[in-house]
Amino acid sequence: MTQRKQVTLRDLAKHLNINTSTVSRALSEKSHGMISPDVVKRVRQAATDMGYKQNAAAYALKVGSTKTIGMIIPDLMNPVFPPIIRGIQSVLDQYGYTAFLAYSQNNERAAHTEVEKLISRGVDGIIYAAAFRKDSVVDLCKREGVPLVLVNRVVDQGDVDTVKVDDSLGIRMAVDHLLDLNHRNIGFIAGPKDISVSHIRLRAFTQTMAEHNLKVPPHRIVEAHALSETGGEEAMSLFLRKNPDATAVIASNDLIALGCLTALSQFGYACPKRMSVIGFNNMPYLDWFATPLTTVSIPHFQMGERSADLLLKRIKSDNADFHEEVLLKPKLVIRKSTAPLARNKKKKQAAQDISSG
Amino acid sequence: MTQRKQVTLRDLAKHLNINTSTVSRALSEKSHGMISPDVVKRVRQAATDMGYKQNAAAYALKVGSTKTIGMIIPDLMNPVFPPIIRGIQSVLDQYGYTAFLAYSQNNERAAHTEVEKLISRGVDGIIYAAAFRKDSVVDLCKREGVPLVLVNRVVDQGDVDTVKVDDSLGIRMAVDHLLDLNHRNIGFIAGPKDISVSHIRLRAFTQTMAEHNLKVPPHRIVEAHALSETGGEEAMSLFLRKNPDATAVIASNDLIALGCLTALSQFGYACPKRMSVIGFNNMPYLDWFATPLTTVSIPHFQMGERSADLLLKRIKSDNADFHEEVLLKPKLVIRKSTAPLARNKKKKQAAQDISSG
Repeated sequence: MTQRKQVTLRDLAKHLNINTSTVSRALSEKSHGMISPDVVKRVRQAATDMGYKQNAAAYALKVGSTKTIGMIIPDLMNPVFPPIIRGIQSVLDQYGYTAFLAYSQNNERAAHTEVEKLISRGVDGIIYAAAFRKDSVVDLCKREGVPLVLVNRVVDQGDVDTVKVDDSLGIRMAVDHLLDLNHRNIGFIAGPKDISVSHIRLRAFTQTMAEHNLKVPPHRIVEAHALSETGGEEAMSLFLRKNPDATAVIASNDLIALGCLTALSQFGYACPKRMSVIGFNNMPYLDWFATPLTTVSIPHFQMGERSADLLLKRIKSDNADFHEEVLLKPKLVIRKSTAPLARNKKKKQAAQDISSG
Repeated sequence: MTQRKQVTLRDLAKHLNINTSTVSRALSEKSHGMISPDVVKRVRQAATDMGYKQNAAAYALKVGSTKTIGMIIPDLMNPVFPPIIRGIQSVLDQYGYTAFLAYSQNNERAAHTEVEKLISRGVDGIIYAAAFRKDSVVDLCKREGVPLVLVNRVVDQGDVDTVKVDDSLGIRMAVDHLLDLNHRNIGFIAGPKDISVSHIRLRAFTQTMAEHNLKVPPHRIVEAHALSETGGEEAMSLFLRKNPDATAVIASNDLIALGCLTALSQFGYACPKRMSVIGFNNMPYLDWFATPLTTVSIPHFQMGERSADLLLKRIKSDNADFHEEVLLKPKLVIRKSTAPLARNKKKKQAAQDISSG
């Protein structure tokens, strides 16, 4: 281990031949008024000359704040998380906070372990972008009295500060867009249902369809094993075998939607000619894609900013009587993976409607 | 501020009616052998029952290690950095280290400030993926005795542990590929020259061309103001005005290459038919792009892993007598943004070669 010859308060006191407590007060913004300006000046000059630096660990023990926070996300390789993190840090930077980064790998147990580690490091608060619907991390933070803000996901427990996007509205926009394009046989490739966003998006899909008097038979919904490309590819292959009459699908997120495109090309189906596809998230660089994905855009950077704002507020004054929920609006970005239902299909479908009606 | 009722060693001692130092020894893996097994058992049971947790700040003060490291990257929005970070953390996780994440925004002053902050937080070491050719961060870490590993970039100072890719070899592969496709009028869209990778890649380009007896006139090289899409777009517009006869360009990184594609389409030039383009980095999702980019692939995840290995080694035993440099091999990934020189152009060029020869 490298030896750092750290200059201590005691070193300064010895050098100046005064008490350590005097040195401490002279260097403190709070209490230097208690000592003569002349001494303050001498101490501060010596501190600069000798390269004294306040030790963060000593400071933390004294004031009970480390000016650090922990960020926990599922996985940095999912392109929606970098802008959320940047948003969080753009706010933290202004207040002198530094952030730890840790991962849940979409595994509640792993998240719990990471949060325990962060708490033992004395973080002032935690921003958690990985919550499961029922999540022990929430109880852990409550028990330990550590401020917690959830971002992008919600938990069944309630009573937690949350920054989220109106997922239901986003799915409603996606369904309405497909209905405007005359699609009726619409499927949904869901994410794992223990992840809150998957659950909420799927529910919004069946509800919106129901409001338009469109029944969603069970085979129209396939659950992917993960919010990933391979998850989407597998689920879409199954979906296509079960649903030869479907003309559009909504995917629970963009990575699943990309998997859907892969499955479509394996089946020799063109997108959007044979099948329209909508994603969720508006991941970066979609405009560059060979099939630019129509998707629900969520304000990632802003979500990060708002969650950091909320956490700092909570760190400053914890009032357990109420909790805040920030709800941000999504937007539908229409690109080229969705198209009007082809005329011959419409006719065929009308015929089916009559025969089955 | 939330009050955490942290159980202290003193609380345990009081509860058990023994000395604090006995409690401390009983809980220590090093010194519990000094006390009777019976007491050790009682203390540990009480610690569990009362929810005692070792305070990280107290631990840090005692052993002089925080088991934290700092990672500094230019910007998380550049898609090459997430996999590097994941690689770093995959190694750190195994050794119980937690990582701070900070940004330089490609600004040396900002990096310096962040490193100072991290040092005051007592990090055991720093991984710095943002170095400038002449970088004060290197001197700062040396002065403070903080182990430092550079990843992806190098500095002129030397004497620093470094994990990098053989950039020169990567550029050589790119040039050879274009020569194989019969291109001769090849340009280079460089990054800012105070960034080491930009400098090294540009130098490798002119050297490789020279080895093939191809002179590179100054107008064939344009420097982008940043390693970004807009930097590439502006530089490529300028390049195209100056070089109507060019048939291929190599860009200093993928983002610049994407900017080149934008400029080409603004000029109504098709890629690769009118102009071949090669990038550097192999950012994620390129296979999905409408013009899938030929690029030099670098092993990002592995770079992260190796730099964490090197840092941990250095933290364990600092020997200033030698420094390690890990050099990883790049690979050329040929996609569809490069194509053989069109036959009529070849003829035209042959005619030019004769007339000028």
